[in-house]
Amino acid sequence: MDSTKLYRINDEIVEDNNCSESVNCLSWKKEALKLAIDQKVFDDEPLALIYNLDHFRQLAKESNDNFQGIQTMAVKSNPVLSLLKEAIKAGLGAEVASFGELRIAELAGFPVEKIIYDSPIKTRKELEYALRLGVKLNVDNLQELDKVVEIVNTLPEDIKQRVSCGIRINPQVEAGKYADLSTGVPTSKFGIGMEYRDEIIQAYKNHKWITGVHLHVGSQGFEMDQTSNGILKVYEFVNEINQITNKQIKFFNIGGGLSVNFNTEVDTPTFTQYANHLRQKIPGLFNGDFVLITEFGRGYFAKCGYVVSKVEYTKRSGGRDIGVVHAGANMFIRTVYQFPLWKLRVSVFDERGDFKDGKDNSSIYDLAGPCCFAADLLVKERKLPHIVPNDYVVVHDTGAYMYSSYSHYNLRLAPPIYAVEQSENGTYQFSQIKSSETIEDKIKFFS
Amino acid sequence: MDSTKLYRINDEIVEDNNCSESVNCLSWKKEALKLAIDQKVFDDEPLALIYNLDHFRQLAKESNDNFQGIQTMAVKSNPVLSLLKEAIKAGLGAEVASFGELRIAELAGFPVEKIIYDSPIKTRKELEYALRLGVKLNVDNLQELDKVVEIVNTLPEDIKQRVSCGIRINPQVEAGKYADLSTGVPTSKFGIGMEYRDEIIQAYKNHKWITGVHLHVGSQGFEMDQTSNGILKVYEFVNEINQITNKQIKFFNIGGGLSVNFNTEVDTPTFTQYANHLRQKIPGLFNGDFVLITEFGRGYFAKCGYVVSKVEYTKRSGGRDIGVVHAGANMFIRTVYQFPLWKLRVSVFDERGDFKDGKDNSSIYDLAGPCCFAADLLVKERKLPHIVPNDYVVVHDTGAYMYSSYSHYNLRLAPPIYAVEQSENGTYQFSQIKSSETIEDKIKFFS
Repeated sequence: MDSTKLYRINDEIVEDNNCSESVNCLSWKKEALKLAIDQKVFDDEPLALIYNLDHFRQLAKESNDNFQGIQTMAVKSNPVLSLLKEAIKAGLGAEVASFGELRIAELAGFPVEKIIYDSPIKTRKELEYALRLGVKLNVDNLQELDKVVEIVNTLPEDIKQRVSCGIRINPQVEAGKYADLSTGVPTSKFGIGMEYRDEIIQAYKNHKWITGVHLHVGSQGFEMDQTSNGILKVYEFVNEINQITNKQIKFFNIGGGLSVNFNTEVDTPTFTQYANHLRQKIPGLFNGDFVLITEFGRGYFAKCGYVVSKVEYTKRSGGRDIGVVHAGANMFIRTVYQFPLWKLRVSVFDERGDFKDGKDNSSIYDLAGPCCFAADLLVKERKLPHIVPNDYVVVHDTGAYMYSSYSHYNLRLAPPIYAVEQSENGTYQFSQIKSSETIEDKIKFFS
Repeated sequence: MDSTKLYRINDEIVEDNNCSESVNCLSWKKEALKLAIDQKVFDDEPLALIYNLDHFRQLAKESNDNFQGIQTMAVKSNPVLSLLKEAIKAGLGAEVASFGELRIAELAGFPVEKIIYDSPIKTRKELEYALRLGVKLNVDNLQELDKVVEIVNTLPEDIKQRVSCGIRINPQVEAGKYADLSTGVPTSKFGIGMEYRDEIIQAYKNHKWITGVHLHVGSQGFEMDQTSNGILKVYEFVNEINQITNKQIKFFNIGGGLSVNFNTEVDTPTFTQYANHLRQKIPGLFNGDFVLITEFGRGYFAKCGYVVSKVEYTKRSGGRDIGVVHAGANMFIRTVYQFPLWKLRVSVFDERGDFKDGKDNSSIYDLAGPCCFAADLLVKERKLPHIVPNDYVVVHDTGAYMYSSYSHYNLRLAPPIYAVEQSENGTYQFSQIKSSETIEDKIKFFS
């Protein structure tokens, strides 16, 4: 059990009871990183983001095997074009939460019938574009519905026939662990509250082309039971509406909301567990009455991605050991700005790519990010192996909602992105799927 | 005093005792916005950022009049190219905190002798580029100093003669209101701690081209006295070093650190007040012994800039009134992610550009940003006048550290930027100084 203990030194937010599993799971990263360093895959770059495509494909398959209907990926979680194309190959559709996301999903080649357009703020132009394109549109509020009705009335008959709209209903339930991500609370900005029952029913009665319903309780920090309580509440209301409207609602979009485990390497809970939970609690979602739509994001991508940064400097100040790395506030907005809510696991490797277990030498570190403000700390007061310049720090579970919210602060360039996958003979193959941002790109943004 | 009271309804974070001043100061914005709407300056755009150039020029002049030596602007606070050029015209130099900032400052045309390169993480390539260019370089730590020495030793003699380096010394003093921005605490990632006195003295003795010293106590949330305590501590140490080294230190860089008033329209404290405070407390900074260098950022730009967003929708949920606007987490990272630490003042205007005083109708509002997460709220539970779609919301004091840290989240386009200035006859002139980001730009980032 030595290795378990050593892993804890390298990454102390791992829980005791998951350590042995974690060490096993970490092994592929050890092997892959060693190989990448030997092959000088990202030798000249101080920072890179790496995706394990095999892992992603396995998760997408599991989701498709367990849910019926249309599984979409939340584009906001990971809008990297080549990964959107991987999602298409894996049979996923796209949930888009802005016009920009709609356009990149269209460019990636998602079938329009598998593009779901949610957004709390859609302008008239954006709505018209989406309706003409033929994506599935979820109306956020009654004022937006008025706009949609006006637009639909102006559409040519053939396009009008294809209009596919849903209404986003807010179940008005309790918050999860993170208020920031609890979209279904009573005062939420999203959707139409269940308190407006009569108005919602009337909307369905007035417009036969509203054939869908959408809800999303929250995306991280929810127990499965909390999420499904919200779904159940809307499910019962939908059945009521369907009795009145002769089964007008055909598309039931349950949103995302499978929380991701940031404490160990293990994927838990799984898509299988969540589907089984829903099957048991709301069997009617799976009996063919509805086309079930899901919108997972973090669940597909968070644990497939990891960031690797070289250590540029080490120093000691006020008794604190500090490693200065290239990964910080630009990519890890929540980790840095909302410390300590979103801690990330890290591991340290030496310049040859060998894992540092911290057995002989460790201390309490801050890992300082590159940005010019005091709080840009990737890791704060964590026990880590002794670090020297040119070591590598691996930041785990960083495949979702990190690169996607990249901030221009300090004009620091967004890193290149690599894919890694195992060939048939078991060796890891690396390929660059997006090059580093350039200084010229960055200057253009501000010019 | 009616107007004072009414202004409080529109913007309740204003303190009572500042209301009348604030109303007066707000008047130019009322007039300018009305004009912009009449002239359809940003008619087709739901979001815009506006800078009052006259206000900026007045502040830059005040800073130049009060401090001797080199006044730089912190490029990180506002790296918009055309505004960098305004800063050059106003006689300012550039403090750059990354290689990207160095390059945009170079492109803007700052004289190299007025470019100060600070950064907690400079690579060998970046250091070599900067040394050859001839900017003033502040060394962050002893490992970096070793690299700089190696590079300097390889430089041609003429370039070597021009090398101008300083050492960033961390005074290791107490934090200000915001730990996030307190760069001079004992365990700070920045600079070399005063605890390493001997090593610092030895560095100056070893390298005659280290002719500068740099410190920065913190950038917002400090009383002038706190900041100057840190400066005094380093000043005394510098005098000690100069006695040993025959006055080797010639450039004294006191950093930035003039806190900005986000509660009212008033610029307070002023550059004049801060300079007077320093003159009294540390007269030796102004007696000609040193070239004094400053690095203000927020103080120059925060209160010159304001964001205007159209209201797209209004709704009511769980008893809360909600206005849905286009300004949110992309630009206001601290306001949104660190609620309630960084509240912003807002005012509401109708679609004709007339100020809404809320006299007859007001309630408690959330202003929801456009991003797809629950916490993207520009304003939370604030008493505001009754809002309807197509109203304008003005977000005050948003000219620094907002656009500069723009996040790609949800692929929402960065807004266009306008300058406004008064012509000789007193009328406000608007001009676009940066166009909106395009969908193509945004997709390129992720491709």
